[in-house]
Formats: sequence, C-alpha cells, structure tokens
Amino acid sequence: MFVLGVDPGLSRCGYCVLDGRRRPRALGVVRTEVSATVPERLADLLRDIGSIIDEFRPDVVAIERVLFQVNVRTAMSVGQASGVVMAEAAARGLPVVEYSPNQVKQTVTGSGRADKEQVQEMVRRLLGLDEPPRPFDVADAAAVALCHLAFTARTVPA
Amino acid sequence: MFVLGVDPGLSRCGYCVLDGRRRPRALGVVRTEVSATVPERLADLLRDIGSIIDEFRPDVVAIERVLFQVNVRTAMSVGQASGVVMAEAAARGLPVVEYSPNQVKQTVTGSGRADKEQVQEMVRRLLGLDEPPRPFDVADAAAVALCHLAFTARTVPA
Repeated sequence: MFVLGVDPGLSRCGYCVLDGRRRPRALGVVRTEVSATVPERLADLLRDIGSIIDEFRPDVVAIERVLFQVNVRTAMSVGQASGVVMAEAAARGLPVVEYSPNQVKQTVTGSGRADKEQVQEMVRRLLGLDEPPRPFDVADAAAVALCHLAFTARTVPA
Repeated sequence: MFVLGVDPGLSRCGYCVLDGRRRPRALGVVRTEVSATVPERLADLLRDIGSIIDEFRPDVVAIERVLFQVNVRTAMSVGQASGVVMAEAAARGLPVVEYSPNQVKQTVTGSGRADKEQVQEMVRRLLGLDEPPRPFDVADAAAVALCHLAFTARTVPA
C-alpha cells in the first residue's frame, strides 16, 4: 500500500510517497514560477501532481487540511492549491483523506502544538533518514503520509 | 471574441458564454453531488469545466474573485472550486482574468453594493432576455462576463 502525502501550497507543494512500512519512495516539492499568473501556476501544479501520481502509483492521497491563519491571502492560495490536488487525485480514482495540522503533529510528535523543527526531526527519525527532510514542506508532506499510516493501522491490521 | 464568465462554487458553479456583442451562447450551472466527497465533487467540476471549454471554445475566462465572508467553511470550498476552474482554463492555454464582486456589481448596476436581485435584473436587460437568469449563480456568471467585456472595451476598441 502506497500513500502520497501532500502539504498543499502554490509556491511550494510538498509531497512524499511512503509504502506501508514507512519506507520513502519519493520525497520532493513542486515549485511554481512566482512570475507566472495564479491560474498558470495552478495549471502547473495540476500537471505536476498528475505526473507524480502516474509515476509512483499511490493507492491513496493524504492531504493536510487548510485552515485559516493570520494571512488570509496565503490561506486562499493554499486553498486553491489543495482544491487542485484533490480534484486531480479524485479524477484519477484515488481516495483522498484530509487530516488537520493538529492531527498530523499529534501523530508524529505526540503534541498538536509541536513546531516545524520538531515535526521535521521526528519525520527524519521515523523514516530513518540521515538528514531532516527539507524544506519544511517536504517534512510536512511526509508527516501527513505518516499520519495516514498511523490512522489506518489503528483500524486495519497491517 | 467569446468570454466564459464563471461564478465559482462547489454545489453550484454558474457559467455563461457571451460573444463580443453580449449575445449569450451558453448559460448554465454545474452542480455536483452533495452526497459525494469534496475531492470527488472537485473532480466532477474539473471535468465539466473542461467540457464547457471544449464545447464553446472561449478565448478568455473571467471569474469572480473569492473573498472571505462570514462563513469561512463556504469560502474555503468556493476557493477550492475557483482554483480548479482557473487551473483547468490555464491548462488549456486560456487567459484567466479575475474581477472582484464589487467590480462586477459596479459595472452591471452602477453600484458596488447592489443586491443579487438587482444584478439579476440588469443581466436580464443587458442580455435582452425575457426572464431573469436563474439561479443567481447563472446571473452572476453572466455579470462577470459582462464585466470583462466592459473592461476590455475601455482599453481595446471593439
């Protein structure tokens, strides 16, 4: 069972493919051109997420739910990016599961209030990496994928 | 020159295709199944907007910009829907222009604070329809298309 974890974003969209034993098959970030228009950048994200799904053939997509933060402008572009990722995944017949930032942090670090460095360090340990995954978007995507594995392990024996 | 106006939404996404002389070539609404998951509904919207573009071959897409209102949950799903529409339009090489709700209302009614009924009635008159377009989503989509025609007429002689 392969899970594609996604930390949605327009400038940087983190992704991580894990197998059922937490082994990373892919870790990376989709970047879009800051100089392009928002619709063009969303189209690039649509295409790149499609390519990642084609290449790594995940069985499910786990994505971090977008909440409203201080910066309303950022929240909207993150929401648009998450919509594009969810639409493309569902268009390819994949189930999509959303997890809140708190669920993700709680699962990976034991605290829903953990900071980004703590999440990054725990992802490094749980995946058995020598270096913490960078940038944070990659670590966050891996954390969402780990969160999904933890939640499904609770209900379905491995 | 054909313009596709879009009033983005997940439950109902209004669309309207106008030619350069304000003649309607298409008026309608894309509805998605309330019982489906959000990703499935976004995938349906992605497919349907693509079909509309294929069928009516617009030269440009004009879309109402999503602002944050009282209902944060609705704003997020509208933002996701707008992201999907913009991505699909740009993926097909179409320019996408956003107009704020105020710009749209100002252009069509002369007041940025006009209510939905007033917009609907002015759309009926400007398009020469016997009945006001319904539901409101269709009228709003036509209003965005009219707004785009008005803005481009100001800068490029017809």
